[in-house]
Amino acid sequence: MTARDSVWMHELTWPEVEEYLGGDRVAIVPIGATEQHGPAGVLGVDALVAITLAEDAAQRSGVLVAPPIWFGDSAHHSAFPGTITLRTETLTALVADVCRSLARHGFDRIILINGHKGSNLPGLVTAVRGLHERELGGVMFAVADPLHLARSAAGEIKETNEHHCGELELSHVHYRFPGMVRMDKLTDAEVDFEDVFGGFVGNDLFGPAPDGVEIMWSGAEQRAFTPSGQFSSSLGVTEEKGRRYHDHIVGRLCELIDWMRGYDGPIGRKDRG
Amino acid sequence: MTARDSVWMHELTWPEVEEYLGGDRVAIVPIGATEQHGPAGVLGVDALVAITLAEDAAQRSGVLVAPPIWFGDSAHHSAFPGTITLRTETLTALVADVCRSLARHGFDRIILINGHKGSNLPGLVTAVRGLHERELGGVMFAVADPLHLARSAAGEIKETNEHHCGELELSHVHYRFPGMVRMDKLTDAEVDFEDVFGGFVGNDLFGPAPDGVEIMWSGAEQRAFTPSGQFSSSLGVTEEKGRRYHDHIVGRLCELIDWMRGYDGPIGRKDRG
Amino acid sequence: MTARDSVWMHELTWPEVEEYLGGDRVAIVPIGATEQHGPAGVLGVDALVAITLAEDAAQRSGVLVAPPIWFGDSAHHSAFPGTITLRTETLTALVADVCRSLARHGFDRIILINGHKGSNLPGLVTAVRGLHERELGGVMFAVADPLHLARSAAGEIKETNEHHCGELELSHVHYRFPGMVRMDKLTDAEVDFEDVFGGFVGNDLFGPAPDGVEIMWSGAEQRAFTPSGQFSSSLGVTEEKGRRYHDHIVGRLCELIDWMRGYDGPIGRKDRG
Amino acid sequence: MTARDSVWMHELTWPEVEEYLGGDRVAIVPIGATEQHGPAGVLGVDALVAITLAEDAAQRSGVLVAPPIWFGDSAHHSAFPGTITLRTETLTALVADVCRSLARHGFDRIILINGHKGSNLPGLVTAVRGLHERELGGVMFAVADPLHLARSAAGEIKETNEHHCGELELSHVHYRFPGMVRMDKLTDAEVDFEDVFGGFVGNDLFGPAPDGVEIMWSGAEQRAFTPSGQFSSSLGVTEEKGRRYHDHIVGRLCELIDWMRGYDGPIGRKDRG
Amino acid sequence: MTARDSVWMHELTWPEVEEYLGGDRVAIVPIGATEQHGPAGVLGVDALVAITLAEDAAQRSGVLVAPPIWFGDSAHHSAFPGTITLRTETLTALVADVCRSLARHGFDRIILINGHKGSNLPGLVTAVRGLHERELGGVMFAVADPLHLARSAAGEIKETNEHHCGELELSHVHYRFPGMVRMDKLTDAEVDFEDVFGGFVGNDLFGPAPDGVEIMWSGAEQRAFTPSGQFSSSLGVTEEKGRRYHDHIVGRLCELIDWMRGYDGPIGRKDRG
Amino acid sequence: MTARDSVWMHELTWPEVEEYLGGDRVAIVPIGATEQHGPAGVLGVDALVAITLAEDAAQRSGVLVAPPIWFGDSAHHSAFPGTITLRTETLTALVADVCRSLARHGFDRIILINGHKGSNLPGLVTAVRGLHERELGGVMFAVADPLHLARSAAGEIKETNEHHCGELELSHVHYRFPGMVRMDKLTDAEVDFEDVFGGFVGNDLFGPAPDGVEIMWSGAEQRAFTPSGQFSSSLGVTEEKGRRYHDHIVGRLCELIDWMRGYDGPIGRKDRG
Repeated sequence: MTARDSVWMHELTWPEVEEYLGGDRVAIVPIGATEQHGPAGVLGVDALVAITLAEDAAQRSGVLVAPPIWFGDSAHHSAFPGTITLRTETLTALVADVCRSLARHGFDRIILINGHKGSNLPGLVTAVRGLHERELGGVMFAVADPLHLARSAAGEIKETNEHHCGELELSHVHYRFPGMVRMDKLTDAEVDFEDVFGGFVGNDLFGPAPDGVEIMWSGAEQRAFTPSGQFSSSLGVTEEKGRRYHDHIVGRLCELIDWMRGYDGPIGRKDRG
Repeated sequence: MTARDSVWMHELTWPEVEEYLGGDRVAIVPIGATEQHGPAGVLGVDALVAITLAEDAAQRSGVLVAPPIWFGDSAHHSAFPGTITLRTETLTALVADVCRSLARHGFDRIILINGHKGSNLPGLVTAVRGLHERELGGVMFAVADPLHLARSAAGEIKETNEHHCGELELSHVHYRFPGMVRMDKLTDAEVDFEDVFGGFVGNDLFGPAPDGVEIMWSGAEQRAFTPSGQFSSSLGVTEEKGRRYHDHIVGRLCELIDWMRGYDGPIGRKDRG
Repeated sequence: MTARDSVWMHELTWPEVEEYLGGDRVAIVPIGATEQHGPAGVLGVDALVAITLAEDAAQRSGVLVAPPIWFGDSAHHSAFPGTITLRTETLTALVADVCRSLARHGFDRIILINGHKGSNLPGLVTAVRGLHERELGGVMFAVADPLHLARSAAGEIKETNEHHCGELELSHVHYRFPGMVRMDKLTDAEVDFEDVFGGFVGNDLFGPAPDGVEIMWSGAEQRAFTPSGQFSSSLGVTEEKGRRYHDHIVGRLCELIDWMRGYDGPIGRKDRG
Repeated sequence: MTARDSVWMHELTWPEVEEYLGGDRVAIVPIGATEQHGPAGVLGVDALVAITLAEDAAQRSGVLVAPPIWFGDSAHHSAFPGTITLRTETLTALVADVCRSLARHGFDRIILINGHKGSNLPGLVTAVRGLHERELGGVMFAVADPLHLARSAAGEIKETNEHHCGELELSHVHYRFPGMVRMDKLTDAEVDFEDVFGGFVGNDLFGPAPDGVEIMWSGAEQRAFTPSGQFSSSLGVTEEKGRRYHDHIVGRLCELIDWMRGYDGPIGRKDRG
Repeated sequence: MTARDSVWMHELTWPEVEEYLGGDRVAIVPIGATEQHGPAGVLGVDALVAITLAEDAAQRSGVLVAPPIWFGDSAHHSAFPGTITLRTETLTALVADVCRSLARHGFDRIILINGHKGSNLPGLVTAVRGLHERELGGVMFAVADPLHLARSAAGEIKETNEHHCGELELSHVHYRFPGMVRMDKLTDAEVDFEDVFGGFVGNDLFGPAPDGVEIMWSGAEQRAFTPSGQFSSSLGVTEEKGRRYHDHIVGRLCELIDWMRGYDGPIGRKDRG
Repeated sequence: MTARDSVWMHELTWPEVEEYLGGDRVAIVPIGATEQHGPAGVLGVDALVAITLAEDAAQRSGVLVAPPIWFGDSAHHSAFPGTITLRTETLTALVADVCRSLARHGFDRIILINGHKGSNLPGLVTAVRGLHERELGGVMFAVADPLHLARSAAGEIKETNEHHCGELELSHVHYRFPGMVRMDKLTDAEVDFEDVFGGFVGNDLFGPAPDGVEIMWSGAEQRAFTPSGQFSSSLGVTEEKGRRYHDHIVGRLCELIDWMRGYDGPIGRKDRG
């Protein structure tokens, strides 16, 4: 791979990054997790999701991507072998340091792409909200999560309830990283949401939510209520679903990049920051 | 007020709390904020919301409430006089210490009621998720937010978009704390969401959300894009709307308390914690 | 209650606070504790003390009060149900964040009123000493404790040794918050100071002190050496003692406010801060 | 010097300390400061005070002393050259680590001797109060300060008000460390307490205190209100005063050690800790 | 790629990792940096070094590798665009959390492979030294650095002094990742060590060292004394040198793995940990 | 001792330090440890090493020395009575605070002298590397360790392998502090490096190192593999060896001081810092 072919900063030299900064200021930071994804999904699913979304959006839009963060906030999966979790405080510190470094070089439109639906958000938001208020007023930050970027499309693509290790998540990885979903291990195992969470937690991340609350559960408890690690059926995994899901989110990310690039609103002004 | 009239721990003696713990184990912790709520709402709106929900649910269900936390994560409002904000890390530490204290006495069903829609959630979730995984496996934690508990009802009650200082929030406080909304200062001032956030952030907290992201903004930026502090119109404030909104949420909280009390599922078991 | 009747920031709108700041710069922060106060005193005694002193001094002097901090450093009471304690580090962080917020708005005379005799002082002093040296040189801070403000008067009012849950403390709360002292539970239970602390710790917080040291004790140990939680007799509680004690301290606080308002000495100058 | 002549752990080998622990369990930790002491006192005055009290009490009582901590909480003196200050948090962490180490070896009666009147106490108390509650319930901790140990004697010895760099403090060091007080630089310079602190702070650390509060001042402010660094006159320094002051405190420390050695009360029991 | 072809945990499912743990307990954690490597080396050089050493040693020895940490302690390079640095504290927390996660699953022989010569060591050692003493006594930790593993071989392979961006480092990456060294940008630019560091810092990381000290320099200073970022000449880069260097280190790592696997000495015993 | 005889800041008054700063800006900070040094060496060996090197270099060069830090990073020795260890984080914070204080007064050439070979370096480097990058760019920092300053001379002086409690270390202390090595307890006890560390850790700190790694060991493990605490033989201790070793290092330190004093290179410039 030559320099001009790569959107990854770690595959560029510093003069190549300097040249980019002469013309553009957007940086993407992909953040995933290394955690159990049931019998079929590899531990890196969430990181792979962030990596492929970042890479493809960056290639289409011509922006740069920082090296990936492979670890996230996965304590609730930590009773399954191979799960590696950061304390929320560590994740926050890590993301803040990466953003500080980028800002020092002049990147002032920073997009965090979270591949680990929901669970990373407290750590990520804490990091960039604090940075923006107290240190980096001149940098505009966006936190992007597939769950929120695919709202309008997920319902049309998926056939069943979608939750951890579900049909959409695994279709996505299967499409982009063939072999990273063991297609012979797909299963209809799922959590009994009523039994575990009453009616207070929804069983479809893209479906209508109940009048609900957040209930905390630990790694040990998770292994007790889903011995496979699966939260919703993965039987419906297909490459085609993955393609549609991926293309929708990448398209929306490109719109976000375009909007941030040309942004002239009240946020992230150098004169105020 | 005599002991038996009060659900507030700070209005009870220690033998009275000890007696309660002989029969029940549920505690509520109300967490608000002290932050600008536009020209009409007092700075304590979010704390008052948490306090009244906690108090009324506790009275109906016969459980106890810890003294209120009046401060939350309000940096984005901090350019308006009177706003008092905690760093997210401080909020997390504070909530964790309160929960540790309750757990030491045997409270093992703890419900955080958040009166500060959304913004406190990273701090609160970080606190209790970490506690439950690493220290207090035998305690069941729920984080309750009006935004999520009123999902099914808000649409029927409100007439306009609801956001910070909006119709529902102020009706709620007006109903429960007459005088705490200056009815002569209601206004239709609102944020131009398209200008500030493109199409990436929704303008109705109870409405359908766009394929969106989270955009961070600072206190100084907020004061620039909404000089009144108002995010959506408060013209529609009425006591009746407040009553319906309040009753719906309190009702749902009581269902939550009942469910947690009788919970026999895999979470918060003493033998595993 | 209307805006002009209230000294509490949380009962004011931001324009009302802004108006105040046009004329005055004093803020009071009341800090208490939620901890056992024997068979007769409610858990909130220390917070109620701070609240009532803050409120009455503010009303007389025409200054504003931040919402109360209900929690303090009470680990040594934590074996009694209902006690909620912060680690000293948490209390320090919390108070520092509140003061930073006030200072941002222009409050530059900040008085902490501590209702939790002695035990909170390390945390409070650490917070504002560090802030004043390193961040907020232009703000003048005072830490006010009833123990120190009533030195000259306590001896004339009380009839017995005064310590935790003693005659003066409970008279004070009984006078200002009728019902918050269970008058039928007053007791002459007290700690055997000689047995527990040799002659190295005094048994009267307002009396002459021995050539002594500080001895640390834990919550569990406290419950062992005072099963009731009482340190000195509460039999002498009367409304009249509470009134005299309260009025003396409020009077002295008003003198403090006047002095700080007109202060022209070397501390808290804007040009140096 | 041979092993048996020394009370200092750093002058003993590990088998010699092990032998001591076979018979006794008391350890002293001397904590001072390195801060300006006016034109006559060396920067190490507070550390020298702690060192000599620890050494002499240990020799008389036959116990061991940890190496000295030369630094304390001296930010308010930090505008004078040579002052070295720790943040309170650092002092707390340092003292806690030293105590943890001692406790690991079986020292279970630990006496902190503070040579830096008052200012170190928040840090020291925070350290050992937290340790005793949360980690080292089986260790008994005392925090000893000359200010409190000389209460009954100071009035008889000193001739003037005593404050920072005053007559007693410097007499003490002059007596024990000849040359460490520049006798030709004694001065009657002093702070104008009324001007700086109103009537709210006392001008004699051993005298009757006003109905007062604590006022924070910074290093820069201190240099403004006392250009010499002196708080009260040092003209009365004599070796004889130093001797009487020293002997009184050492005597009381020995009583403390005896009492702690034979203590059979409720604190620091192994079976509870 | 199928499961059995991969040594990377993120390319395995949790049951596949569980199966591995039935037979072996060794895990490798590769840690690099994202920092300038002169005009020819990409920013990811140090991470690529750690990745390829980990991967090849793992493949030969049949052990597993955690996902890579792409960021290290690179503040001294931070004035060059694209450098991303963690504070030492963040790196320490990150590595500790990764190791804690691995240990929870039963990995008890953990090898950190550092691709960022020297600079990461304080953070890495702090992390695992503390973990091993205080939390994970039953886990054996090794910190492996190419600088130390190639001591005996480097002299024979290289032709010039070796320092940051030197001949050996870039040959290594050129051999394993063709294209990641811009061969048309090699340069003989180098730091004038005598001018910058006197005779107190050596100019060859594999050469004899002077009677020296460590001198700290900042990112801004580095850019001043080496405008290209180069510390020693890279003109001698060849694939063959890279191959010899790589093979030597991988060979030694495999010996380390074998030794740790069969280790029966006093470190990392379960019965003591 | 009079002021002019002392290089120790704690033996000077603030005007005396101020006078020094009018002519010179160098400060030395000696950092040791309090840890077991076998049957013959006192616990303070490492601190005594730092103290004597600092004192003698300062006297010869005419610079000042801060009071000593008696504690370091000694967890691996902590199973032997009398060892007092700081967590690395505490050591880092402590050293940073001391350096901040010195820098405030205008000391801008700061030399840390480490008496605790190797083990303190992570903490010390973390402290001053971070300070120099983020806070004190105008201060030049050197970290000096006898191990590195005696490289060229040790081989000629010593007769056996040198490691913890070895011939050189104890000769050094014996020469400078007669009595602090119990000459009747010298021993040839040593660690079996092959058994404990395979061939991956060298058995002579001044000898050629293997292609090695760092292996962590705990305090408990150390006591298991060296019941005496000795790592290499101390039988060869003589005053003469100590004298040669000491004089060599002091000489080199004086060269360092001279070089730093006259330094005109790119590091620690006021205009950039």
